[in-house]
Amino acid sequence: MDPYVIQMTGSGNLPSVLDMHVNISGRSSAPGKMKGRKARWSVRPSDMSNKTFNPIRAIVDNMKVKPNPNKTMIALSIGDPTVFGNLSTDPEVTQALKDAVDSGKYNGYAPTIGYLSSREEIASYYHHPEAPLEAKDVILTSGCSQAIELCLAVLANPGQNILVPRPGFALYRTLAESMGIEVKCYNLLPEKSWEIDLKQVESLVDEKTACLIVNNPSNPCGSVFSKSHLQKILAVAARQCVPIIADEIYGDMVFSDSKFEPLATLSSNVPILSCGGLAKRWLVPGWRLGWILIHDRRDIFGNEIRDGLVKLSQRILGPCTIVQGALKNILRRTPQEFYHNTLSLLKSNADLCYGALAAIPGLRPVRPSGAMYLMVGIEMEHFPEFENDVEFTERLVAEQSVHCLPGTCFEYLNFFRVVITVPKVMMLEACSRIQEFCEQHYHCAEGSQEECDK
Amino acid sequence: MDPYVIQMTGSGNLPSVLDMHVNISGRSSAPGKMKGRKARWSVRPSDMSNKTFNPIRAIVDNMKVKPNPNKTMIALSIGDPTVFGNLSTDPEVTQALKDAVDSGKYNGYAPTIGYLSSREEIASYYHHPEAPLEAKDVILTSGCSQAIELCLAVLANPGQNILVPRPGFALYRTLAESMGIEVKCYNLLPEKSWEIDLKQVESLVDEKTACLIVNNPSNPCGSVFSKSHLQKILAVAARQCVPIIADEIYGDMVFSDSKFEPLATLSSNVPILSCGGLAKRWLVPGWRLGWILIHDRRDIFGNEIRDGLVKLSQRILGPCTIVQGALKNILRRTPQEFYHNTLSLLKSNADLCYGALAAIPGLRPVRPSGAMYLMVGIEMEHFPEFENDVEFTERLVAEQSVHCLPGTCFEYLNFFRVVITVPKVMMLEACSRIQEFCEQHYHCAEGSQEECDK
Ligand SMILES: Cc1ncc(COP(=O)(O)O)c(C=O)c1O
Ligand SMILES: Cc1ncc(COP(=O)(O)O)c(C=O)c1O
Repeated sequence: MDPYVIQMTGSGNLPSVLDMHVNISGRSSAPGKMKGRKARWSVRPSDMSNKTFNPIRAIVDNMKVKPNPNKTMIALSIGDPTVFGNLSTDPEVTQALKDAVDSGKYNGYAPTIGYLSSREEIASYYHHPEAPLEAKDVILTSGCSQAIELCLAVLANPGQNILVPRPGFALYRTLAESMGIEVKCYNLLPEKSWEIDLKQVESLVDEKTACLIVNNPSNPCGSVFSKSHLQKILAVAARQCVPIIADEIYGDMVFSDSKFEPLATLSSNVPILSCGGLAKRWLVPGWRLGWILIHDRRDIFGNEIRDGLVKLSQRILGPCTIVQGALKNILRRTPQEFYHNTLSLLKSNADLCYGALAAIPGLRPVRPSGAMYLMVGIEMEHFPEFENDVEFTERLVAEQSVHCLPGTCFEYLNFFRVVITVPKVMMLEACSRIQEFCEQHYHCAEGSQEECDK
Repeated sequence: MDPYVIQMTGSGNLPSVLDMHVNISGRSSAPGKMKGRKARWSVRPSDMSNKTFNPIRAIVDNMKVKPNPNKTMIALSIGDPTVFGNLSTDPEVTQALKDAVDSGKYNGYAPTIGYLSSREEIASYYHHPEAPLEAKDVILTSGCSQAIELCLAVLANPGQNILVPRPGFALYRTLAESMGIEVKCYNLLPEKSWEIDLKQVESLVDEKTACLIVNNPSNPCGSVFSKSHLQKILAVAARQCVPIIADEIYGDMVFSDSKFEPLATLSSNVPILSCGGLAKRWLVPGWRLGWILIHDRRDIFGNEIRDGLVKLSQRILGPCTIVQGALKNILRRTPQEFYHNTLSLLKSNADLCYGALAAIPGLRPVRPSGAMYLMVGIEMEHFPEFENDVEFTERLVAEQSVHCLPGTCFEYLNFFRVVITVPKVMMLEACSRIQEFCEQHYHCAEGSQEECDK
């Protein structure tokens, strides 16, 4: 019997829950006390919660393998830069928070879109002559996740669709599908440093397309789009009249040989909601402070979208005020060396990891230019023991205690993602274990004997 | 012309947006490049954002009156106990936050439902032999607002209905309607110290009723339900098989002559989601830490509702970790005197305000027993100049610079709500201004000349 159906009457032979519901709603209103009465308990989760699906959780939770007990676990799976202890936020950032506490000024409710003064700070920090910002263009949110949620919620109705990158950050789909919004994936091309397949984007747009999500720098690819590629993306959006949600949570986190161009600075006509936050660049993902920057110089969003965002922000009343109060000093006082140190650690791990994995037969890493990740292609034909990337990464855990997320988590098969925020020794150790693993399982593909000389 | 429609082609005579949409979706897929192409910009806010409506904002923003320039403004309208400076959180609470910052342990992502250790603290703090709690029964949220949002989102589908108190906290309706859930109001009875009209509740339940919201102690009434009244509420819920969302954000904030009974401690069979948070009792509403306590001893919610809540929490990844990290010390170290001092200030203001307003002809305050509010009935027949409570409170601002929210904000006409967290002198001054105002506008009702001897 269904454990959620509790028998309240004496009857031993109850109809199923479904029958019951059909029954009740089908009958005409009964007289007197029984009117509309529910005969017994039947509490079911809503469709929305059923539709809220986190693929990473689903895949990872189903990976029921144990790490090799003889090797310490190395988790290259977690997109949290703080867990290894080698990357921590700057003392100015924590001091800013303590000062905000001590001031006693930030304990009450803020406006639901954030304190005016905090929004002014964000506006002037991200202001650009080509993409001017004022406080009214800034909405503070509970992390970049809520920024994305609000943008989707204001732009799309159930039944509409959005275009998201593949491989891409799983939250886009989780949020969209929970709201009944259809997700259409466009491809990122590994052979072109993960540039967008723009032809495909253009072909996917239809009259129900509510927006295009562009994630730059990219999770999971670690790629950074060039100015000219961004301009091409904007041209497509302009031609198709599709607004853009720019997920720029890794904005400015690019290695010295690349340059981060905020998408909005390159367009004067495409309306853009740029999402960001403190999580990654300031290494405080738990603090849950994010923002939406509204770029709308042609007044295409207009007041209606702005008001819509404000109204949606009233549902849960904004992010923690103490963190808001600390924003000014966080933005003004964090020393340049801090950003620089983070990036040089990431860059050095990226080079190290890319170099090591590129030398392994059967693997094809794609060199990253920013963010905190790199994607590695698996030449599955050389690993016939494994059915797919999920099995590959499972066995990597079981044998080498190295945990990477399979590309399937990002809807991209036969790749795996490596998080490069770990300490250098761990990075090196992980790479050599991956090498050992690949050597043990590498098989020459049929008909390509000559490549296979080991 | 509609400002959100930007003309992209040269044509001077464009069809309306609606025509355009019908046009596009009606036509068969055109060949080549034009397939599905949107011909021009038309970005509209979603139905959800249009349906997200905060009545307090709508009413207050429409009150376009200026306060009397000769009198300083006294805002008895804001449910934020921190704004007047007389009520501030305990030094132990802020110290707990700073210790959490200094520990360096709470900067990364927490599980989306909160750290296990923080949930354990909440569980043991609110554990009761009659309503046992473990960490697995606790979900941390971004304020009590998000707790209520998640509870509604997991229990109700669009098209279902929920029962909410009238007068009541406006957020219930705001959240429900944004999700397409119908709101049915049940009355609180001023003549019975705002007890629930239980007959009415029972008559409102139908097969589409997803849950009953019970708010105790009450905003806006300041009422506290007795044990026996709570038992009757539970009996109705049990008979009708309707789960309860207990909004207990003002839990334990009751004056010494009353007792707060957590609803779940009085029932062993009704499934209850109890919502609370730090906002009111610890006087830190800006910190945005709330919780859901899952009480389900009969396993009626079962794993499905629990899992649903967990999945929904993954959408924005939980409340600020620093506040979570501080929870243990906040709960353990806040001295009893702190709670006591808050309550005696509230009680003294409540007595003072009740006494003063009860003596004013034309007003009928209802004595509060907890929370931070009191409701005052207006005998409108004695104030014929004013059409309703909104006009009454508007004129009170214009003439006396005293701002109270009209009952209309809580869907209850001919009352106004007074916030009693202000400093004593301000409370006194406000009452005497209200008295002056009433005396100036009081008219004898027709046919009741004898009462009217002033
Ligand atoms: C691409 C991308 N966007 C958004 C987020 C969410 O950021 P936040 O932690 O601020 O919600 C992440 C987090 O990993 C991310 O990788
Ligand atoms: C009855 C009631 N429930 C919930 C809330 C929201 O609390 P929080 O600030 O923790 O979201 C309030 C705030 O005023 C309230 O009065």
